[in-house]
Amino acid sequence: MTDPVEQPGTPAFVLVRPQMGENIGAAARAMWNFGLDRMRLVAPRDGWPNPNATAMASGAGRLLDAARLSPDLPDAIRDCTYVFATTARARDLTKPVVSPEAAMRMAAGRIAEGQRVAVLFGPERAGLENDDIARANAIISVPVNPAFASLNLAQCVLLVGYEWRRAVGAVTPATTEMAGTDWAEAVEVEHLANHYQDRLEEAGFFFPDHKAHSMRINLRNMWSRMPLTRADVQMLHGVMRQIVRWKTRDD
Amino acid sequence: MTDPVEQPGTPAFVLVRPQMGENIGAAARAMWNFGLDRMRLVAPRDGWPNPNATAMASGAGRLLDAARLSPDLPDAIRDCTYVFATTARARDLTKPVVSPEAAMRMAAGRIAEGQRVAVLFGPERAGLENDDIARANAIISVPVNPAFASLNLAQCVLLVGYEWRRAVGAVTPATTEMAGTDWAEAVEVEHLANHYQDRLEEAGFFFPDHKAHSMRINLRNMWSRMPLTRADVQMLHGVMRQIVRWKTRDD
Repeated sequence: MTDPVEQPGTPAFVLVRPQMGENIGAAARAMWNFGLDRMRLVAPRDGWPNPNATAMASGAGRLLDAARLSPDLPDAIRDCTYVFATTARARDLTKPVVSPEAAMRMAAGRIAEGQRVAVLFGPERAGLENDDIARANAIISVPVNPAFASLNLAQCVLLVGYEWRRAVGAVTPATTEMAGTDWAEAVEVEHLANHYQDRLEEAGFFFPDHKAHSMRINLRNMWSRMPLTRADVQMLHGVMRQIVRWKTRDD
Repeated sequence: MTDPVEQPGTPAFVLVRPQMGENIGAAARAMWNFGLDRMRLVAPRDGWPNPNATAMASGAGRLLDAARLSPDLPDAIRDCTYVFATTARARDLTKPVVSPEAAMRMAAGRIAEGQRVAVLFGPERAGLENDDIARANAIISVPVNPAFASLNLAQCVLLVGYEWRRAVGAVTPATTEMAGTDWAEAVEVEHLANHYQDRLEEAGFFFPDHKAHSMRINLRNMWSRMPLTRADVQMLHGVMRQIVRWKTRDD
């Protein structure tokens, strides 16, 4: 039942009665940013294909070419085993409400089990109707400012797509902490600290006497606290050497 | 140093040399969706205020009214103690690269300790320049599809704002080990970097010519990457001053 053009392994994003072609194109771009390419369309207001959508989608036009067109929502989700509806407003429907993060984790889990998952996005102006939401298994609620909820269609697609990408782990590690950096070894930091201390002793920096000891400790403590690379250490040696050389040449 | 109109407790979002007024307005809306209202602007291309920004911001116009305008990046971040730069492309600058999630957790932790945090967003077309990034402490990399990275300015603001909102849902102080530290503000680090750069220019350190530019950026990048306290900055000024004075007295 799944279209041959659709890749398995990702959720389908279903735009329900979208209005402006530009917004369909922007939604395609938002999806493709996160490696999602299964778009489905329910009764786009201005017909299909739509040249405004194509113009806006530049770079993600392939998603529009492959988009599956349906006359109504039941047709669009007929092959799906689990359906999320996105909504900005609270509804009085009895239905699980989950965050985008939790939803995309659930989606990843279900897809890994061989299920077919869809996410519904409503028309720009009014959002999904209760009749649409009644066909979903769960509601995705984006945690926006209650005093100002103004996500547009592509932005809503973007946030859910972003969470999909996070859920499947195809993400940059939370922090690379500069992986691969050529960090200075302690002995190099020690030599750097000694170099500065020696020159500063000569220069009479550690003054007055009763403060000299704590000044030396503070300076050494600073070098040790810094996340210094080998290149930093070389540069800092060069800085001191050059200043000394410059002033020495001056006389 | 912080503007009286700015609310504490959230990061400032700094739009660096933004081009279209519409995008500034859209960024304001994206911010306010997640309760962020501290916008700063660096040299907007079309001047300020900008009627196109106001028209687009509808509902979030207050952010534009309160936005702090600066002629250059150092001025915009002068009071900040920790600065993130958003970037789509990998850079060859030695600097921690973190996900939006990790970044906003770090930001929440630091803000809870009383620090002032900023996030930089580059111009629409080209993004931040290396010279801008050299003034940040860390880089935020959004995990987009490597084959298709097409986030616009407001979308990038939206994703980072979304992660801010998620982060303050469950804040764990990130760096308790130095809570209460009197961290240097960016303006102080800027002055320190200028002090060293000026003396080193005089001393002929930036040589040969074809390497001079990248040497300057590397040095500035190092200062921004270091977790410098106010006391460190004073000490490093003193180091340079004393070496220059010493050698000058020698003749």
